[in-house]
Amino acid sequence: MSQWTKHDLLGLDDLTKEEIELVLETAKSFKEVSTRDVKKVPALRGKTIVLLFFEASTRTRTSFELAAKRLSADTINISPSTSAISKGESILDTGKNLEAMNVDAIIVRHSSSGVPKILSDNLKASIINAGDGCREHPTQALLDLFTIKEKLGRIEGLNVGIVGDILHSRVARSNIWGLKKMGANVTVCGPSTLMPRGIEECGVKVSHNLSEVIKTSDVLMVLRLQLERMQDKFLPSVREYAKIFGVNKEKLKHAKKDIVIMHPGPTNRGVELSAEVADGEYSVILDQVTNGIAVRMATLYLLLGTKEGN
Amino acid sequence: MSQWTKHDLLGLDDLTKEEIELVLETAKSFKEVSTRDVKKVPALRGKTIVLLFFEASTRTRTSFELAAKRLSADTINISPSTSAISKGESILDTGKNLEAMNVDAIIVRHSSSGVPKILSDNLKASIINAGDGCREHPTQALLDLFTIKEKLGRIEGLNVGIVGDILHSRVARSNIWGLKKMGANVTVCGPSTLMPRGIEECGVKVSHNLSEVIKTSDVLMVLRLQLERMQDKFLPSVREYAKIFGVNKEKLKHAKKDIVIMHPGPTNRGVELSAEVADGEYSVILDQVTNGIAVRMATLYLLLGTKEGN
Amino acid sequence: MSQWTKHDLLGLDDLTKEEIELVLETAKSFKEVSTRDVKKVPALRGKTIVLLFFEASTRTRTSFELAAKRLSADTINISPSTSAISKGESILDTGKNLEAMNVDAIIVRHSSSGVPKILSDNLKASIINAGDGCREHPTQALLDLFTIKEKLGRIEGLNVGIVGDILHSRVARSNIWGLKKMGANVTVCGPSTLMPRGIEECGVKVSHNLSEVIKTSDVLMVLRLQLERMQDKFLPSVREYAKIFGVNKEKLKHAKKDIVIMHPGPTNRGVELSAEVADGEYSVILDQVTNGIAVRMATLYLLLGTKEGN
Repeated sequence: MSQWTKHDLLGLDDLTKEEIELVLETAKSFKEVSTRDVKKVPALRGKTIVLLFFEASTRTRTSFELAAKRLSADTINISPSTSAISKGESILDTGKNLEAMNVDAIIVRHSSSGVPKILSDNLKASIINAGDGCREHPTQALLDLFTIKEKLGRIEGLNVGIVGDILHSRVARSNIWGLKKMGANVTVCGPSTLMPRGIEECGVKVSHNLSEVIKTSDVLMVLRLQLERMQDKFLPSVREYAKIFGVNKEKLKHAKKDIVIMHPGPTNRGVELSAEVADGEYSVILDQVTNGIAVRMATLYLLLGTKEGN
Repeated sequence: MSQWTKHDLLGLDDLTKEEIELVLETAKSFKEVSTRDVKKVPALRGKTIVLLFFEASTRTRTSFELAAKRLSADTINISPSTSAISKGESILDTGKNLEAMNVDAIIVRHSSSGVPKILSDNLKASIINAGDGCREHPTQALLDLFTIKEKLGRIEGLNVGIVGDILHSRVARSNIWGLKKMGANVTVCGPSTLMPRGIEECGVKVSHNLSEVIKTSDVLMVLRLQLERMQDKFLPSVREYAKIFGVNKEKLKHAKKDIVIMHPGPTNRGVELSAEVADGEYSVILDQVTNGIAVRMATLYLLLGTKEGN
Repeated sequence: MSQWTKHDLLGLDDLTKEEIELVLETAKSFKEVSTRDVKKVPALRGKTIVLLFFEASTRTRTSFELAAKRLSADTINISPSTSAISKGESILDTGKNLEAMNVDAIIVRHSSSGVPKILSDNLKASIINAGDGCREHPTQALLDLFTIKEKLGRIEGLNVGIVGDILHSRVARSNIWGLKKMGANVTVCGPSTLMPRGIEECGVKVSHNLSEVIKTSDVLMVLRLQLERMQDKFLPSVREYAKIFGVNKEKLKHAKKDIVIMHPGPTNRGVELSAEVADGEYSVILDQVTNGIAVRMATLYLLLGTKEGN
């Protein structure tokens, strides 16, 4: 198997198919650790990992923190409200200071696209993008790929539909990169006001007909609808959206028998996904959460645990 | 001694006398750990314990976190303001996600009665109630029982007075269950607007005469007065309350010589308790805090450390 | 070498020259730990260290937390917004409660001068002042002294200029104590509205001419300008301040060739320090951050790790 050489994880745009496969393979071996009585391996003992979250998050922050702790690393939480950021310190200054404290990795989430790249260009610590603006959320896509492979045995050749607000979704963007590299056929589906112009150039098909997409899909990724988009006039009403693009049991009638329904969470039940479907037989939403820990352990291990001379 | 079989700690209502005794006995052996130079035992190494606090708390959160760390568990803090709760995720969804991350226990505090029960009914992780609405605060009552037994050698047959806002107090409710099961005689005392109707059916006496209660009590539990009750018109004024139901040296003149004065903290000095009494010879307030760690270590250990096949 | 006997670290006012030297010497041996692959020594395993920060801080809080973790201590974060402080509990009550939980050290930052002293007078736990009002910030001064000695080989006999808002600066105050004890010649320089009356009695020279100070200084400590001072009418405008007291390349023309420029961070680039100087060849700002971890490890180790019978 190929060797890991990357210093940071900024996005799936940057990764080769072989690198993605290496993460998935490594995650497989880490998944078992979280089912043990003693959920801990010493792989990253004495490493310092900073969680620098400028946006609120339960799932992603907790998942990374648990992943780091199960690898025996030391973790430090920094969130803007309790930090010098409120004193007007620039993000790069914060990064430089953390570097001076000899931290090994900075896991960063920020509402502006490109913040992880800026840190990566200027710091020796490994930077892991935990979501930047509308750009990428690479570990989410990696855990989605892991889950698809776990459920269906492969990714290549599968038809994957991504439904919802494609325009603002870093989850969609990272998944498109990852799925295409792994050989899947991707169709994006959503209101035209929430569809990025020229998205076809990424090698995806565009559809505005959810029923058509459902009929041919092996995997349906349903995106979270940010309810604040209503105010921005991207959508006329939540009810309208739910009627046309919400996934419910009725619309799944003509789906493949073993269709896999995914959602990055947290779900708006009754909006993009009916409660029945979210908790139903096709849903793998909680598997995604479980696999998130394994994929993040793999990511941290590959970035920090296997460097030569380290 | 009896074996521990409970999966959760929701309240003292649910525990048998034998189970309460088992917690107290186990706490006794853990109390010594916190006086060591190396305050740490490996009992829960590799376990993941989540502190899910929807209400602010220094004492209880810190006490649980220290208890978990002294047992070598990994801890994760989640508080609503920094979590997906603010994105409208339901509490049960949060719980399901934590379960999917293979956490071993969730310590939860919430302003609504019954939240720990809902989590317990739906999750495999052990749920520990750190205070739910006006219902129960079981570890507080357990540490109170532990402290009484430590100070007076027994609980059975003792006269215990509980003074203050009985109506809104989860501390009072848990203690009433616990004290009755352990064979104590309980008298509750407070303004009639703050006395739950039908409280006598729990097997307690009701008094509105503090001096009478003090005269016969072996133990006096003074409750914290939530000052916001004034606004709710439950009370005419703080000064009035302090005059009638505040415990001071003068009122203790006719108390038993070895009366034990307890308070769950934080105290409003000069309101429910004079500073002189809070810091005086009868007060065991800081012993309660010390014993809180031991009791919480015992609770976590019984719930997570001794399962078969674990 | 002399033995450490202090129980707390409240300020440099309290330390002897020998004690300061002992911290610096100890820090030297800990500096190497943070460059290892496994950045961890077991010196304080099983100790409980509380970070009680009433004021926001990235640098200092993170630095202390990392120092504690690299010594293998358990850490607990308490910040006022999530604590019982908001329930009106007094600081001393909080301290008494932490003491009852057998914590070994409390690292405290507070906007009121003297809070660490009050805790120290009343508690058995070691108190470490992480900044109190305008009084002292001892670990900042210790890391500054460490950095000067590292860069220039000595402190005795050096000319040190401290520039800026001397009146409100706990960093200035701690450094004046420390530098004088170590035998440096100190000149303070700033607007007369921001100069404490009678400061000469501390054994420092006062100057209002930055160029003069720069010309003779071996070390220039530039203080952060709290921009809120404008509102308080201490200063006419930021632009005016920057013009007269801001340090830039032009003003450094007549400086010594190996002048050392320091700043406690976070810097207001373009105000007290030009970006060019902050990132330039004379700046040791990031060395200060790196040395902060070593000095704080030394402090924690001397206070907690070497007591007899411990």
